[in-house]
Amino acid sequence: MPTLNVNLGARTYPIHIGPDLLSPSSGIPLSSFVERQVAIVTNEVVAPLYLARLSQPLKEAGILVSEIILPDGESHKNWKSLNHIYDRLLAERCDRTTSIIALGGGVVGDLAGFAAATYQRGVPFIQVPTTLLAQVDSSVGGKTGINHPRGKNMVGAFWQPRLVLADTDTLNTLPDRELSAGLAEVIKYGLIRDLPFLEWLEANMVKLMARDSAALSYAIERSCINKAAVVAGDELETAKQGGRALLNLGHTFGHAIETGMGYGVWLHGEAVAAGTMMAVELSRRLGWLSDANVERVQHLFEQARLPVRGPVLGSLRYLDLMGHDKKVIAGRLRLVLLRQLGNAVTWADASQVEIRAAIDACCE
Amino acid sequence: MPTLNVNLGARTYPIHIGPDLLSPSSGIPLSSFVERQVAIVTNEVVAPLYLARLSQPLKEAGILVSEIILPDGESHKNWKSLNHIYDRLLAERCDRTTSIIALGGGVVGDLAGFAAATYQRGVPFIQVPTTLLAQVDSSVGGKTGINHPRGKNMVGAFWQPRLVLADTDTLNTLPDRELSAGLAEVIKYGLIRDLPFLEWLEANMVKLMARDSAALSYAIERSCINKAAVVAGDELETAKQGGRALLNLGHTFGHAIETGMGYGVWLHGEAVAAGTMMAVELSRRLGWLSDANVERVQHLFEQARLPVRGPVLGSLRYLDLMGHDKKVIAGRLRLVLLRQLGNAVTWADASQVEIRAAIDACCE
Repeated sequence: MPTLNVNLGARTYPIHIGPDLLSPSSGIPLSSFVERQVAIVTNEVVAPLYLARLSQPLKEAGILVSEIILPDGESHKNWKSLNHIYDRLLAERCDRTTSIIALGGGVVGDLAGFAAATYQRGVPFIQVPTTLLAQVDSSVGGKTGINHPRGKNMVGAFWQPRLVLADTDTLNTLPDRELSAGLAEVIKYGLIRDLPFLEWLEANMVKLMARDSAALSYAIERSCINKAAVVAGDELETAKQGGRALLNLGHTFGHAIETGMGYGVWLHGEAVAAGTMMAVELSRRLGWLSDANVERVQHLFEQARLPVRGPVLGSLRYLDLMGHDKKVIAGRLRLVLLRQLGNAVTWADASQVEIRAAIDACCE
Repeated sequence: MPTLNVNLGARTYPIHIGPDLLSPSSGIPLSSFVERQVAIVTNEVVAPLYLARLSQPLKEAGILVSEIILPDGESHKNWKSLNHIYDRLLAERCDRTTSIIALGGGVVGDLAGFAAATYQRGVPFIQVPTTLLAQVDSSVGGKTGINHPRGKNMVGAFWQPRLVLADTDTLNTLPDRELSAGLAEVIKYGLIRDLPFLEWLEANMVKLMARDSAALSYAIERSCINKAAVVAGDELETAKQGGRALLNLGHTFGHAIETGMGYGVWLHGEAVAAGTMMAVELSRRLGWLSDANVERVQHLFEQARLPVRGPVLGSLRYLDLMGHDKKVIAGRLRLVLLRQLGNAVTWADASQVEIRAAIDACCE
């Protein structure tokens, strides 16, 4: 079973990846990582599938377990759900030693993590991601938060987990569309910094789409290793050049799609795939990628059944929505582009005309 | 002009204390500490008095200034005010380089600080406290947050400022009742760890109540030095014994008073004074303080025109409200008591009978 450490000094923590991790016989008894009380935050889709499997061994170990079940979906990643968590934590007298465990996808992880970061000014946090996206993205990096009507993830905090359990068995119940959305972020790691992994993905995408357990474990591990390496060098996303910003390939365009269409209409990974195609197209127009490079990326997304075109919002509307993104630094739109496949850069010198042309070329 | 550093490694910051610090001629030009945009958070009472004085020099230096004016009072330290800040920051396209400046008392500081901790996962924060309480308490420690209907400060974060400007001139417009409330925390530092300062306060309380500028500057400086020493050893309040918890003398009882009466009916400092008398009374009953010690503390609070009795809520109701306080660790009520004047300890071994007797003895 792969285990890797995210090295962040005093906040270093392990990620365990593999099948059957939620079982008490996995050798990772969660009860030994917590004190007398935990609160499991999950949603109404995941709860019937995995909540009992997680909470039963804890209860048997004599630990008080609060189960907080939220509605499903990105549209619920808001103050109302967060406040519901606070209400339950307070009603059940959770204190500063109570661990909050996120059981679910990115929305559950972001909400539960932000609750952990802010409940009584911070309590221990454990992640049990049950989607591919959460296993390869939210498991590493410590980003937590909620959406605001004016923009995605505009309110949040950095808060590192004590432990991540990525049980690949939970992917067996993942809808096809969400598996694909997770693969968008997996492909991203190859594109930004790991050409051999990109080549591995081209050779193994059929296996991944067929949910081959060993292939999925490898893809998750390699994704987490890549992300951990980036995050370790730039924990709080303060690097002026490169650093964590490189993880945002396709995300500034993608956020425009998500916000422009209304939260939850496009899945995050879908928006990232279409947004990445825009970044790739702009990179081609800057002379950094060949037509063949662009086709290669497009083919990989298509194999993963991901959209390679954005919705027709009009490129001016895209620009306006991108201006609200956190990647805007001191008024300049700073994009992540590809110098070549496997080599991303941050770039603030693209003109609005160039950016709009790339967007227009990638909308259907 | 006294300047002291709060030593927190990479998060070390200076506190400047003295008259006329908001003037451009103070030698501390705020414009040199910020980038191209700031958001000043203040309230409707402070804004007409000091907002122009703070914002004018920034505007003249070419800095974009957003002015966010909240309603006054502890009852507004809630999600609604926080969301109003987020709305304005987003509407005015504040980004991750925008500094948030708190101009006002503890409520403004806690709200603005929590907004700074969580807006786009954290932006720079500067404090300009205009009440004695904020100057001696919120200036040091990095605690930020909002109240929840079920408990005070239940949602928040640790977020250190880059700079604190404590302009003693702003105390000239402070209502008498708030000056007294600030003195409750000043007295606390003497009680918990600085007997010579307690003696100085006994000798100088008349000057402080007359708002003697030099006496106030000295009391603020000495309070901040004491608090900084405690905080430096326990930044995130994780010490099992002593540490930051000692700063909570009177606060667990006091929180019960504030919550029981409804936020804002008693000022925080007033509740702390009455709560401290309960802690002092319990310390006497444990044989640690003499009757004369108790009278000495009571006399000092009375000189500062502070309440020395709590409201009659019934001691069972007090206990229930205290059970919701963050100072409850793993189900045990951990109180701060005095082994002797100038020497506080955390104590989890008082029985409910003893605690209730002390409360009953201190309610009118």
